[in-house]
Parts: sequence; structure tokens; C-alpha cells
Amino acid sequence: MPSDPNGTEARNKSTSKRQQTPESAESVSKSVSASRRSFIAGAVATSAVMAAPRWAGAEYLWPTTGPATNGLDALSALADDDLTAIRAEITKRHDESLRRMQTWIQQPSIAAENRGMNEGCELTMQLFREAGFQQVSKVPTDGQPGIFATLDAGAAKTLGLYFMYDVKQVDPAEWSSPPWEAKLVDKPGFGKVVMGRGAVNQKGPEAAFLAALHAIKGSGKKLPVNLVMVAEGEEEIGSPHFPQVVHRPEVQAALKKVMGIFMPSAGQAPDGQVTMTLGAKGVIECELVSSGEKWGRGPKTDVHSSNKARLDSPAWHLIKALNTLVSADGNDPAIEGFADKARPISAAEKAMIAEAAKRTNEAGAMKSLGVTHWVHDVSFQESLELLMSRPTVNIEGLVGGYTGPGGKTILPHRAVAKMDLRLVPDMKAEEVLALLKAHLAKHGFGDIEVNMTGGYDPNSTSADAAVIRAEVNVYKRGGIEPILLPRNAGSWPGYVFTGEPLKLPAGHFGLGHGSGAHAPDEYYVIESSNPKVQGLDGAVMSYVEYLYEAARIV
Amino acid sequence: MPSDPNGTEARNKSTSKRQQTPESAESVSKSVSASRRSFIAGAVATSAVMAAPRWAGAEYLWPTTGPATNGLDALSALADDDLTAIRAEITKRHDESLRRMQTWIQQPSIAAENRGMNEGCELTMQLFREAGFQQVSKVPTDGQPGIFATLDAGAAKTLGLYFMYDVKQVDPAEWSSPPWEAKLVDKPGFGKVVMGRGAVNQKGPEAAFLAALHAIKGSGKKLPVNLVMVAEGEEEIGSPHFPQVVHRPEVQAALKKVMGIFMPSAGQAPDGQVTMTLGAKGVIECELVSSGEKWGRGPKTDVHSSNKARLDSPAWHLIKALNTLVSADGNDPAIEGFADKARPISAAEKAMIAEAAKRTNEAGAMKSLGVTHWVHDVSFQESLELLMSRPTVNIEGLVGGYTGPGGKTILPHRAVAKMDLRLVPDMKAEEVLALLKAHLAKHGFGDIEVNMTGGYDPNSTSADAAVIRAEVNVYKRGGIEPILLPRNAGSWPGYVFTGEPLKLPAGHFGLGHGSGAHAPDEYYVIESSNPKVQGLDGAVMSYVEYLYEAARIV
Repeated sequence: MPSDPNGTEARNKSTSKRQQTPESAESVSKSVSASRRSFIAGAVATSAVMAAPRWAGAEYLWPTTGPATNGLDALSALADDDLTAIRAEITKRHDESLRRMQTWIQQPSIAAENRGMNEGCELTMQLFREAGFQQVSKVPTDGQPGIFATLDAGAAKTLGLYFMYDVKQVDPAEWSSPPWEAKLVDKPGFGKVVMGRGAVNQKGPEAAFLAALHAIKGSGKKLPVNLVMVAEGEEEIGSPHFPQVVHRPEVQAALKKVMGIFMPSAGQAPDGQVTMTLGAKGVIECELVSSGEKWGRGPKTDVHSSNKARLDSPAWHLIKALNTLVSADGNDPAIEGFADKARPISAAEKAMIAEAAKRTNEAGAMKSLGVTHWVHDVSFQESLELLMSRPTVNIEGLVGGYTGPGGKTILPHRAVAKMDLRLVPDMKAEEVLALLKAHLAKHGFGDIEVNMTGGYDPNSTSADAAVIRAEVNVYKRGGIEPILLPRNAGSWPGYVFTGEPLKLPAGHFGLGHGSGAHAPDEYYVIESSNPKVQGLDGAVMSYVEYLYEAARIV
Repeated sequence: MPSDPNGTEARNKSTSKRQQTPESAESVSKSVSASRRSFIAGAVATSAVMAAPRWAGAEYLWPTTGPATNGLDALSALADDDLTAIRAEITKRHDESLRRMQTWIQQPSIAAENRGMNEGCELTMQLFREAGFQQVSKVPTDGQPGIFATLDAGAAKTLGLYFMYDVKQVDPAEWSSPPWEAKLVDKPGFGKVVMGRGAVNQKGPEAAFLAALHAIKGSGKKLPVNLVMVAEGEEEIGSPHFPQVVHRPEVQAALKKVMGIFMPSAGQAPDGQVTMTLGAKGVIECELVSSGEKWGRGPKTDVHSSNKARLDSPAWHLIKALNTLVSADGNDPAIEGFADKARPISAAEKAMIAEAAKRTNEAGAMKSLGVTHWVHDVSFQESLELLMSRPTVNIEGLVGGYTGPGGKTILPHRAVAKMDLRLVPDMKAEEVLALLKAHLAKHGFGDIEVNMTGGYDPNSTSADAAVIRAEVNVYKRGGIEPILLPRNAGSWPGYVFTGEPLKLPAGHFGLGHGSGAHAPDEYYVIESSNPKVQGLDGAVMSYVEYLYEAARIV
């Protein structure tokens, strides 16, 4: 549905600059994983909060109140001969794995700028082949190509994988280490990290997963599951053509055989803790455009502001339209029928959130978000319930007329509100878009354009799904009691897997840590000096463990 | 009261570019005077409409429906020996007058950029001395200096003058002839024009006035009136410190003796017609700023938009506040007490407007403004009444959060509305600002900052004032029946003269034509090929005539 490839691309330079050198002990201790899996919003520097990936940044759950271990020692609990040999192979191949990751990061592939996309796609396909995928094919779309790959290990079970090969834009001037050099740099409190665009979002964790395949093969072992891979090159612009990849008959046929889908991610916060979310909200990003031309009232170009006395104002028209979309305090959506299909929060979900609230530090959450009140002054637990269960109508930006310093005496002919609407199951993006348009028309604002720039449906996965239980088992064996949440308040395009017709469980998994997604100085920990956080080899081993666990779980 | 020197400075490049080459016969025929006096909004390319000076662009009164002559032939109606000799001297000194104007334009003096201000002030003072002012002094202010000058001709009457020596910013890339070269270029339909920043706004007409003084002196005649000059260097940033100049005791003492004030301007539209306004609306420019920090709710920095579910939104807070300021259709101010002191339109003013409406082309006005309806679908005459009598609450611009292409998933911590409020007699800028703040506080928006960036009171002058009657007499002798309007819907700082304690009549005067104020390719006609429009010498002669008329009017 997203139609604008510039969807969510441009960066807020002034804000992201704030995070340029989070090098003090304090700021480092606050740093968090910005991975796909468990981005802990607001745990860091505020820049991380706002530079979060599209779906991330929703739950603040760090610092937790309970203890956490690094998960490393206990991984050996599973150790049999296979795993011992593979662990040795991982160590042996450490440099090779790092180089592979660096090579990948060094290839820019920015869909928003149509930069290096073909090279990025080809390189990714090559990496898949080298990792053992026997069939690797480029899937053309109306936008950037996707990749479909399969690895038949002759195993009984098949696991699905979701990868992305594109990255967010950069402003190299804001980086302390050049974003395309992928250098190994010392990061106090974390150890040696690879710094570069895509380090944590998502090439670092993805390269760690590929390293797991190399290690298994290199140690002479047989992969315990078959793999089906779908990758896209437009994740950072809202995955507008990803459905075209997943809906191909051969891809659908392959995906029908998988037990579930996962995306590699750097799942650990700086305290080692992992948060798992059983789905994500959906989102509609759209622009509401009020213009004299479409309205038929007010001017068609900017005119001198004195004319307000005799002309209608498209800017006021927009304000009046926006005013109808939410309650008087700006908090409760007022679009007719908006939340009619919203599934109420269940008792089980409430219990899950209550448990998470107990393990989480409210004061730290507020501090990192820069707030002193939750909406309606609710309790922390209620705030988490709202975060996970409440559909929202948000203004991302307002722009119209003169926007520079001071004023300029014009009556603008056009004004735009950039909105995002977050959806919960069982709301559908397409239906909500229609409700928004109907609401505007009913209230006399039918002339206001609603231009959807990106978005998709919510997704939901049961905690009982084998792939999710396998994740929990591996974490627990590593001494980590993951915090489970019913939903990520952000969004990711998991609906293509969890929705009709596949109805697959889908999630993110991986030990290791990184941060700075969408911000300068993005990094992924390679050699950890933090006893609670895994470095590259630990992350690779977590994927090995997960593949074995997925193979044997019932 | 204006406190932000960036007040109304930044230019809208994309729009002003539209006017770069209005060279076709049609576009030229639509070109209008952009002078201080009778800027005819919207008569031109839409760019002129939006690039108008702060007070200009309000009334659209061209093309008129009646005939107009160029005023040249009939100037001789007054001719006695004095005037015949002076006319010859004007012709003789044509090149000298042009060079003086070019030298002035070639000196950039941009208050908004603090560029060339001292040089511009010194040069202007030198031009005043050379023109015969015996006393010329720089008047320091908290901003750029003003100038106070007097010319004692031993005459019975004294006339006041208001000059400005600053100009609007430029983007030289947008000009067909470099803005600081003040070259003489051919402009089809107009003849030879001087092109440069300040050509029409205001150095061209001002230089023409100084040339009148040189011509009178050069022909051995005695100036028929004494002169008191006040000039400022901050007109283009809203005259924030001009009261400091005018309120100096020695300036007040001198101004108490003057019969009235006028500013030289290029008063003719391309059809030769002149529109006179008997005052101007006042204006408040201000920013309404909603922020999490001041509100104490919502975030203090931009955070991920998913947090809307649990956080208040300063952007929505702004929308809800704005919503209370105007009626449901966005047209009628709803600030409590806002228009309580607005003087209703009088029968005489209504008659004046009715006459003007008859002489004006409604369809042309609508076309040039890019509109198909007046507000409330009123008649043309009513639209002019509203324009001149109605106080307004206008949105100049909206800016908050992400404003680039597409969307960005943030909940902004801050949003700003740039507003202008136009005031009619007897409203006062200071009182209205207080009413706005009280209104916001009463409606629960007391946290929203109201930052005034510029503005001043309305001003009003009687048609019976001698300086106004003298203007009318000179125009009429030139065969021009000026259109009289009770008020300019734009604003200029005439209140410093018309208000307490001076209560002087004040207006603009001058034949001649130019356009492009605040836009690229600003020009002033030097050698007119348009039989209805005066060139430089005719403009100079109009000032000579005016000085003599002011001396003898009773």
C-alpha cells in the first residue's frame, strides 16, 4: 500500500546529532539495543528514541529491576559433540565472519536514494549462496528487487527467514567513524564494535546468522533444519513492494512448509536483558493536504496575508479538519468507526504486561522519554497496556506556508499534516484509510487529500508457536528470562507472514547488542567487554542453538 | 514592539522564481507598481502577490474600468516660470539623477543580514547633505541607526518626509540582471528600467525626490517648503526601533512643525492609474509555540510516534488551541474581545469603497489572486469593505516535527504556528496581544508561548488633510483621478506619525512605476515607452509640483 518511496526517509539532523558521542560512562550505560527484535525505546539518549526504526522504540523496559546473566555460560547446557565442534569452528572463523559483515556494510544500499541497490542485492545473493543456499533468485517487483532463497538440508523441519538488505540514509559528517568503512572501534563499556550504517539494522545480526551456517558446515555437521529465505530491499521505505515478493506462487509454496519465520536481531539490552514481542501494531502513514485548488475556496497560490479579510484560508481549513480527528485533549481518536474492530486486550495479555511492568523501571522510562506524565495520568502498568493495545492518531509533522525564522506575511494556499495511525488486531490498514476519508467527507472536509505514504496491517503471533517457544527455550538456557509482551507498539511488515493465507508465526531472535539504527555511529558489538552482553561469536552461537532447538522442539 | 529582527525576512524562493521573466506582452501588461504607495496586489504574476512588502498587496484595484492619462501633459497646467526652468533643469540633470539612484542601489543595506548597514546609512546621509539638508544626523537605536535631517528654506510651511535606506534580501541566482549592479535594461512594454534591489522599494522613488531638490536648487530657485526628514534602516524587518528615532525630543520638536508626512513612491500602475489609501491596518506578527517542556505534558524531545498511545502530544495541543481562535469556517476571529475596539466602517468610507469597486475589475482581481470565491461568498464591494475594515487572524505558516518528503514516525515535542493579526482603528497592537494571551489561558492553553516577532498599530489619515489634498490636486492636474480608499489592508509604520502625540496626516506620493519589491528583477522605470506611465524625469517633476502645491494649499 505505501506508494511514496521517500516514505520515512529524511533524517532529523539536529536531533540525531545529539547522539554523536555518547561516550561518557553514563551515556554508555544507558545505551540500548536498537535491533529489530528488542529495541528498547528511550532507554538511551533521546536521539535513539527518535531515530528508531519504524516499528521500534515502543516499549521502554530497561533498566529492568531483576538480574540478568549474559547467557553465555549456560549455552553449553545444550552442548553435545555437535555444538562443541561448532563452537570451536565459530571461534576459528571469527575473523572471516567479521570480514563478511564488514564487506556487506561497506556496500551502501539505500532504497530511498536508489543508491547501490543492484550491487547490494547481488552481494546479498552471493552471501546467501556462500552460506549454503542451493537456490537463490532475484524477485523483481515494481520497486527494488526482493530475494527468494532455499536451503534443503534434507531435514524434517523447515524454518523461514526474513532478511532486509537495504539501510537507512546517512550524513557522513555526523559520524565519528565513516559509515561505509565499517571499522572496528573501541566503544567504552561495550568493547570492540563494528561501526557503520546497517551494523545493527540489520546486516550485523544477519551476518551473524550466516556465520552460524558457515560454522555448522565448516565443522562438518548437517544443518538440522531446511531454510526458506525471503529478503527485501525496501524495508526502510515501508516495504511497499514486499507483498509482491511473498505472494509469488513459488515463494508461497515454499513458505507453506515452514514452521514459522524469524529475523536475526541484536536482542540484548546493555544489561543483557531480552524483550520479546508477540506481534506488532500496524500503521498508516499519510499526509492530509488542504489546498485552495482542491477546496475551491481560498487562493491557489500564496497571497499577501492581508487578503485573509476577504479570502478563505486552506491552513485554517486543515486546522478545523484535524480538530475533528481526536478528542479535546488530543488523545482519543475520534474518527468514526476507527477502533470498532480493535480487539480488546485479553486477560492473558494484561497479565503479561503486569509482569513486564513489575520488572521495569518507570522513573527511568519517563526520564529517557523526557516526560513527567503518562497520558490521562495513568499508572505505568496502564501506560504499557495503552501502548500495546491502543490504536492512535498521531501528528508526525505540520508544514505549510512560511516555515523559516520569524514570520512572513502570506496567506498560504496549502498546508499539510503528516500523520501516523497505529492499528491493533483486528483493524486493517485499508479499512482504516477508508474510514478516515469517510470521516473527513462527513464533516465537510472531503476536499482534503489523504495521501498514504506507507503502512500495513498489524501482526500477531501466539506465545505457543513452536518458533516462539524455541526462542524462549534458548534464552532461558542462557540464563535469560525474556520479558514477553503481547505486542510491539511500533510496526514491521510481519503481516505478510502472519496474515492470510500463510498465517505463520513470526518474530525476531538473537543474542548480541548494538544501537544507533537510523542515527549516526550505528554499531554492533564484536568483542564484548560487557559481561552481560554477547559479542559476535556469542551471537553466532545463539543462532546455532536456535536452529538445533527449532529442529527438536515439539 | 517587534522584537525579532528576522521578522518577515526569509524569501520564498520557489514562488519568487515564477516572476523571473514576465516578459511576454500579456504578463507585462499585467505588471503593477510595487511601490510603497499603491502596490496593487495580485495585479501581476502571483509572485508579486506574495512577495509584496509587509503593508502592500492588500487592495486589488487594477485593471480599472475607467480611462487614465499619463499625467505628463497636464503637469504643465501649473507651469509658471519657476516650473519651466525646473523642468529644463530636470532634463539637464537626468544622467546625474540616474547615477545617484544607481550608486544608492549598488550599496547593499540589508538589516536582516546586518549587511552594509553602516555604509548604507552613511551614503544616505551624504545624499541628504548633497540635496541641501543643512542638518543631517545619525540617530542610534537599539538596532540599526535612523537618520534625522532638516532643510530650512526659510519658507512658511514645513513638510515631513519618511525614508527607508534598507532593502530586502536577494538571491542573485534568481535575477536576470545582478541585483547590486543597478543596470539600465530594456523592459518590453515599459522602456528602459533600472533593475536592482531597492529599485522601487524604495531607493528609486526616494532618489527621484532628491533629484527634485537638486533640480530646484540647480535652477536657482528657492525650495517652497522647509523639510524635516526621518529615515530608518529597519523597515524590511518591521521597523522595530523606528519609534526610538521618532520619539527623540529634537525629532519630535521638528515634527511638531510639519503639516504632514509623506514617503516618495512609484504610484502608477501600468495603466497609469493611482490608488491612494488614507491609512493602513496595524499588524501583529507572532509565533504560537506549543512544547512539551512548557506544557509539562508530552515529551521534551521528539520520540518515536508509537508513544502517542501513552503520551500527550504538543502538536495536537497546538491544533486544539488554534481551533479556538477562529469560527468553524476559519474566517471570523473568535479571540475574546478581539474586535471590541474596531471602529465600524463609516458611511463615507462605504461610499469611497463603492466608488472604487465600480472602477475596478472583479474578474481580474479574482484571477490574479487565484480565487473563485470571496469569503462568505460576498459581493466584490463587500469583499473590499471586509478587506479594509475587518480585523483578521491569519496563519502564515505551520511548522512542527517532520516536515520533509513523505513521513517520519515521530511524536514531535514542539509545534509552531506563525500568525498575523491585522488590526483596524482603534485597536492597539499591545492590547490585542494581551487579549490573545488571555484567550489562550482561559481556554486551557496558557502554556503556549506567544512570541511577537513584529507589528504595530493601525494608522489613519483624513482625506481633508492638506498633504492629502495637495496629492489629489497634483494627480488631478495630471489628468489622473486617483482612486481613494479608506485604508490599506496591509501595514506600514505610519502610526508613529499619525498616533499620539504628533497626530500628523501621513501618506505616500509620486508618479512613476516600478515592480518586483521583495522579488527578483525589481525595477523602476527610467525612460518610459508606455504613454500612460511616467519615467524618471516625470516622477521628479511630480515631486516638484507637490512641493509647490504643499506650499500654497490652504
